Amino acid sequence: MNEFLQQFNLHVDLAIEARDLVRGATGQEIQGVEEQVEKMEQIKITTITIKDPQAVPIMGRPLGTYVTIESPPLKINDPYVKDEIIQAMSKSMTILLNNRLQPKDIVLLVGLGNWRATADSLGPKFIEYSPITRHYFQHAPEALVEGMRPVSGIAPGVLGITGLETFEVIKGVVDNVKPAVLVVVDALAAQNVDRIGNTIQMSNTGIQPGGGVGNARHSLTEQELGIPVIAIGCPTIVNAAIIAQQAIKNFCSVSNTVFNDMFATNSIKDTLSYFGGDLAVTPKEVDEIIENTARIISMGVASSLFPGISREQLELYAT
Amino acid sequence: MNEFLQQFNLHVDLAIEARDLVRGATGQEIQGVEEQVEKMEQIKITTITIKDPQAVPIMGRPLGTYVTIESPPLKINDPYVKDEIIQAMSKSMTILLNNRLQPKDIVLLVGLGNWRATADSLGPKFIEYSPITRHYFQHAPEALVEGMRPVSGIAPGVLGITGLETFEVIKGVVDNVKPAVLVVVDALAAQNVDRIGNTIQMSNTGIQPGGGVGNARHSLTEQELGIPVIAIGCPTIVNAAIIAQQAIKNFCSVSNTVFNDMFATNSIKDTLSYFGGDLAVTPKEVDEIIENTARIISMGVASSLFPGISREQLELYAT
Amino acid sequence: MNEFLQQFNLHVDLAIEARDLVRGATGQEIQGVEEQVEKMEQIKITTITIKDPQAVPIMGRPLGTYVTIESPPLKINDPYVKDEIIQAMSKSMTILLNNRLQPKDIVLLVGLGNWRATADSLGPKFIEYSPITRHYFQHAPEALVEGMRPVSGIAPGVLGITGLETFEVIKGVVDNVKPAVLVVVDALAAQNVDRIGNTIQMSNTGIQPGGGVGNARHSLTEQELGIPVIAIGCPTIVNAAIIAQQAIKNFCSVSNTVFNDMFATNSIKDTLSYFGGDLAVTPKEVDEIIENTARIISMGVASSLFPGISREQLELYAT
Amino acid sequence: MNEFLQQFNLHVDLAIEARDLVRGATGQEIQGVEEQVEKMEQIKITTITIKDPQAVPIMGRPLGTYVTIESPPLKINDPYVKDEIIQAMSKSMTILLNNRLQPKDIVLLVGLGNWRATADSLGPKFIEYSPITRHYFQHAPEALVEGMRPVSGIAPGVLGITGLETFEVIKGVVDNVKPAVLVVVDALAAQNVDRIGNTIQMSNTGIQPGGGVGNARHSLTEQELGIPVIAIGCPTIVNAAIIAQQAIKNFCSVSNTVFNDMFATNSIKDTLSYFGGDLAVTPKEVDEIIENTARIISMGVASSLFPGISREQLELYAT
Repeated sequence: MNEFLQQFNLHVDLAIEARDLVRGATGQEIQGVEEQVEKMEQIKITTITIKDPQAVPIMGRPLGTYVTIESPPLKINDPYVKDEIIQAMSKSMTILLNNRLQPKDIVLLVGLGNWRATADSLGPKFIEYSPITRHYFQHAPEALVEGMRPVSGIAPGVLGITGLETFEVIKGVVDNVKPAVLVVVDALAAQNVDRIGNTIQMSNTGIQPGGGVGNARHSLTEQELGIPVIAIGCPTIVNAAIIAQQAIKNFCSVSNTVFNDMFATNSIKDTLSYFGGDLAVTPKEVDEIIENTARIISMGVASSLFPGISREQLELYAT
Repeated sequence: MNEFLQQFNLHVDLAIEARDLVRGATGQEIQGVEEQVEKMEQIKITTITIKDPQAVPIMGRPLGTYVTIESPPLKINDPYVKDEIIQAMSKSMTILLNNRLQPKDIVLLVGLGNWRATADSLGPKFIEYSPITRHYFQHAPEALVEGMRPVSGIAPGVLGITGLETFEVIKGVVDNVKPAVLVVVDALAAQNVDRIGNTIQMSNTGIQPGGGVGNARHSLTEQELGIPVIAIGCPTIVNAAIIAQQAIKNFCSVSNTVFNDMFATNSIKDTLSYFGGDLAVTPKEVDEIIENTARIISMGVASSLFPGISREQLELYAT
Repeated sequence: MNEFLQQFNLHVDLAIEARDLVRGATGQEIQGVEEQVEKMEQIKITTITIKDPQAVPIMGRPLGTYVTIESPPLKINDPYVKDEIIQAMSKSMTILLNNRLQPKDIVLLVGLGNWRATADSLGPKFIEYSPITRHYFQHAPEALVEGMRPVSGIAPGVLGITGLETFEVIKGVVDNVKPAVLVVVDALAAQNVDRIGNTIQMSNTGIQPGGGVGNARHSLTEQELGIPVIAIGCPTIVNAAIIAQQAIKNFCSVSNTVFNDMFATNSIKDTLSYFGGDLAVTPKEVDEIIENTARIISMGVASSLFPGISREQLELYAT
Repeated sequence: MNEFLQQFNLHVDLAIEARDLVRGATGQEIQGVEEQVEKMEQIKITTITIKDPQAVPIMGRPLGTYVTIESPPLKINDPYVKDEIIQAMSKSMTILLNNRLQPKDIVLLVGLGNWRATADSLGPKFIEYSPITRHYFQHAPEALVEGMRPVSGIAPGVLGITGLETFEVIKGVVDNVKPAVLVVVDALAAQNVDRIGNTIQMSNTGIQPGGGVGNARHSLTEQELGIPVIAIGCPTIVNAAIIAQQAIKNFCSVSNTVFNDMFATNSIKDTLSYFGGDLAVTPKEVDEIIENTARIISMGVASSLFPGISREQLELYAT
C-alpha cells in the first residue's frame, strides 16, 4: 500500500486507517502502539497511542495520542448521536490536554482551510461557530459569564491574506498573544467514503506537512510553536486514486482475478491523466455535511474549554 | 454503457461524449446525426447536428445543434488559445442564433449554479465577468457606446432566493423583461478528466432536467420559455462511478482480464457505498480552472453580443 | 417643511413622523386620519389609518393602515422588549392581512436593499433569518411540521442580478408562483436619530417609489401586483440635510435667534456641497443594529405566518 | 475648534485640514512646520513636514512628512486625473521611503478596516487590487517578471479573526516575515464632504490610535514595529457633529448672527442624541467611491514598488 500511496503522493490522515492498513498486512497488533476502545450507545471511541519510536515510520505519524470518534453512518444529524459525540470530544480533550491548560489560560482556535474550496472549508466554519471571548476580557468584561476563559480564533485561509504562509501568520499570533494551547481544525482525506462526515479524529501531535485536504506545508506542532497543539479533523474527501484502487480490488475479488499492484497503478495513472493524485472525490452535498460537522466540533471544543456553561449561553458568543 | 449510467443515475452532458459512446458501440456513423469538424491552429471545433427524431433517444438529447470547442490540455491559459476560443465561440453563437437576434434586441444572461459549491460556480462567475448594459439604456444612456445592445444578467443560485425554483425566477424575468434570446451557462459533468476546463459546449437546445452539475429540475428551453435558448457549458467534474469504471476497464485491458459489466457495477456500488452516483471527482485547483473558464466564456459571449466593441471597452461594463 | 424636503429631494418614510410634521404645523388632528394608541409594558403601538382621499396629499402617502411599534431607546436587545415587539407585530399582521390569508396560502417574502451598502442591508438580512418552507412542500414534505404553510423568500438586491429592475424580478416571481400575499421588508430613513433601530413600521400600502434608503423606483403595491402587499420597515439612517436643519433650529431656539427657512436651506446646501440630499447619517455600529432588527422582524413575521409553532422549531427552517 | 472636537471625541485625520484649522485661528504660518506645494495639470500636491517637537501638539500628530494629493471634485474617474495621481503617489512614496527600501526587499501591505462596514472597506479593497508576489518567490519563481520584489498583503479586519487585536496579528506577521517596509491603507474622516474620495494622504508616521474610520486602538508606527511604516488614506466619511457645526456656522454667517460655541455644541448634542460623535455622514454611492479610490491607491503603490513594470502586467498579480 505504501508504494501505491507514494505513486500518487498521498497521505493517510486518519490514524485509525493507518492502523488498519498496517494490521491488514501483518494481521497482528502493532509493536509499540497501544489501543483502547470504548463503546457508547451510538458512537465508538478508539484511542491509539504510539509509544515507541520504532512504530513511528510504520504508522507514518509521530509519537502521541490519537482519539477517533466514529458515529454510525447517516446518523450524524441525530441529536442523541450529537450529544454523545460532544461528550466524547470533551472527555478526549481533557485526556489530550493532560493538565496543561489552567482555568484562566488563553486558548487560540485555528481553522485551517480555504473558504473558496467547499470541501476545505471545515476549519473556517468551525471558527465561525465557536464562542470567542478574549475581546470581552479586554474591552467589555461585564459581558462575560462566570467561569469563562479568554478564547481567540483565526481562520488564516480566508480572503485577506496573500503572499503569506499560514504558518507565518499563526506563529506571529502565538508569539504575540501567548496562548497556553492551540486547537487547530482541518478537513482530512479518508481512505473510505463511509468516513466522510462521520469520523472525528483528535490528537496531541498537531498538523504535519502534507496532511489535510489543503496539504499543509508547515508543521503546526508543539516543537515549532512551543505550546501544546490539539489537532482535530474530519474527512470531507477521498482521493480519486484510492477510490479507483478500491474499485479494482473489489472487481478482482468478485471476478476471481488476481489483483496486480503494478497493473492497477498504471491503469489508475491512465484514468487520472495529468491530474494524478490531485483529484478529490466529494459528495454533492458536501457543504451540508461540513456545516453539520463544523457545528458539532465547535460544540465539542467549547464544552471542553467552557465547562459548566450551557450551549445556549455559549452560542451568544459565537460570531 | 446506458445500463451503467442508469445504475448510478448519470447523465452524459457532452454531446461529443454521447457520440463517442454510441459510435464506440457500433463503430459507425450515427443515422440522423451530421457532423462537421474544423481545426484552427490550437483548437478543434466539432459541430454535431441531430436532425432525425430517431436519433434523439440514441444520442440522449433533443434535435438541434451542438458545437464543441476543444482546447489542447493544460493550455487554456495560453493567450493564443484564448483568442481562438473566443473567435470560435463568436462564430458558433452566430450559427446557433440563426438570425433570430437583431442588433438592438435585449439579451438575458443566466448563470446557473451554486456559489457555495465550488465546482458548481461556473455560471455565477460567468455573470460576474459579463458586460451588463441594460440599466444604462434605462437610466444613463450617455454611458453607452455606439453599437451596444441591452444585456441583463441573473445568477439565481446565489444567496437570496429560497423556496423558489430557479426556473420560476427565470421564467418570471423572461415574461416581464421579454428578452429576444436567453444565454444560459452551467457547469457540466464529463466522462473523462481530460475534459475538465478544456471543452466548451454550445447548443441551441437549452438545458434539460437532470443535466449539469447541479442537476437542473426544469427545462430551460425554447418550448418552455418562448424564446431561443443558447446553452453553454464546460465540465468541472467527472462522476466517481465513471472514474471507477474506467479504472476497472483499464485494469482488465492491461491484465488481459475479461471486463464484466455486472461485476464492475457491483464492485463500484460497493466502493461508493450509500453515496452511489452522488460523488463528484474534481481537481484540487478547480476554483482556478473555473475562474479561467468563466472569463473566457464571458468574453466569447460578449464578443458575439457586442461585435466591434473592444475587450478593454467591454470590461468596463462587467460588475 | 415640505419645501425643505423638496429642496433636497427627501421623502418622509415613517407615517408617524409625517403625522408629527403635519400636526406640528396645524397643532390639530388631521382631517380624514384616524389614530389609535396602545401601550404595552415597554413598547407603544400607534395605528394610523388614512381614510379620506383628501388626507392623502397632506400625509404624503396612500389610503391605508400604518402601524408603528416604538421601543424604548437602547433597549431593543432586552428580551422582554423583543417579546412584546414580536407579539405586537403578530397582532398587527393579522389586522393588516384582514382575513385575506388562508392557512395553507403561499407567502412570498421580499427583502429589498443592497448587501454592499451596510445601512441598506436590512431586507436581505431579514430573508436570511426567516423560516422558508416552500421547497419542503415540493420536495421533502416529511421535513415539515403540522400547521406550516409554504413560504418563499427573495432578496433581489444581492449580487447576481444586474441590468434588471427589482420590480421586474419580483413581478415575475409573483406571476409564476402566485403567492396569496407579499411581505416586503426595507430599510427606511427617519427624521430623527432616536428612531434608528427603534421604530418598526408595518403597513398594507406597499412600497412607493422614492421611499426607503435605496429609493425604490417602482411601486410594490396591490395595484401593481394583484395581491395584498404588507410593507415592513425600520429606519437605519437619517438624511444629513435633516440633521443639519435640526441643529440650526436647536441653535436658534437656544440662542433666541429667529429661524429663517431660506437662510437655513442655503447654509445646508453650502455644507452638503454637490452631494445635496445624497448624504446619509448612520451610527458607526449600524451593522449590529441591523443584525438585531432583522432578527426581530423575521421572528415577528414568522410568528404571524406560522402561528402555534415555537421559535426554536422555526429557526431550523431559516437559511 | 479643539474643544468642539473633544466634546464629540473627534480626531482630525488629514494633516492638511489640521493645518487649515490652526492657520484659520492664527492666520499665520505654523512655527516648526514646513510646507511645499506643487501643481500638476489637474491635481495639487502639498507636502507638510512637521520638524519641530513644539509643533506636534499644535498639529495633533507626530513629527514627520505628510503628503496630500488633491484631485478636482467629481473628476477622480477621469483617466488623466488618475494618471497624475498615480505619478504623484509614486514620487511621494520615494520621498517618504527615503532610500530605506532596496530593490529586492520584502514589503508587507496592510489594509485596515472592516468588510462589513461599507465606508470602512477601503483597506480590504486596496489589498484585493494590489499585485502580490511573495508566494511566487517561494513556490513558483518562473511566474515572476524581471524587476519584481516580494510583496505580501493582509486585511486583518475581514472575517476570520476574532478575539485578536489587529495590531497583534500585524506585529506577529512583521516579526516572522521581516518585511523591510509596511504600507498600510485606511479609510479616513474628513472635515468637509468635498474631500470624500478626493484627497489622498500619504505619510511616514504610521497610524495613531483614535484615527481612521474604525478608530484604530494601537499605533502602527516605526517605534512599535521596528520598520518604516507608510500610511495612506482617503476620507470616506465626515462626522455628523462636524456637518452640524458647519451648517450652524454658515447659518450664522448668512443671517448675521453671532456664532456661539457653547450654544452650537449643546444644539448639536441635542440633535445627535445618545449617539454623540458616533454618527458618520457618507454619500449613498460610497461603495462606488471606495471601489474607485482603492484601485487608484493600489496602482499608485504598485507603480512605486514595481517600477518599470506595466500596469497590465501588474494586474495579473492582483487577487
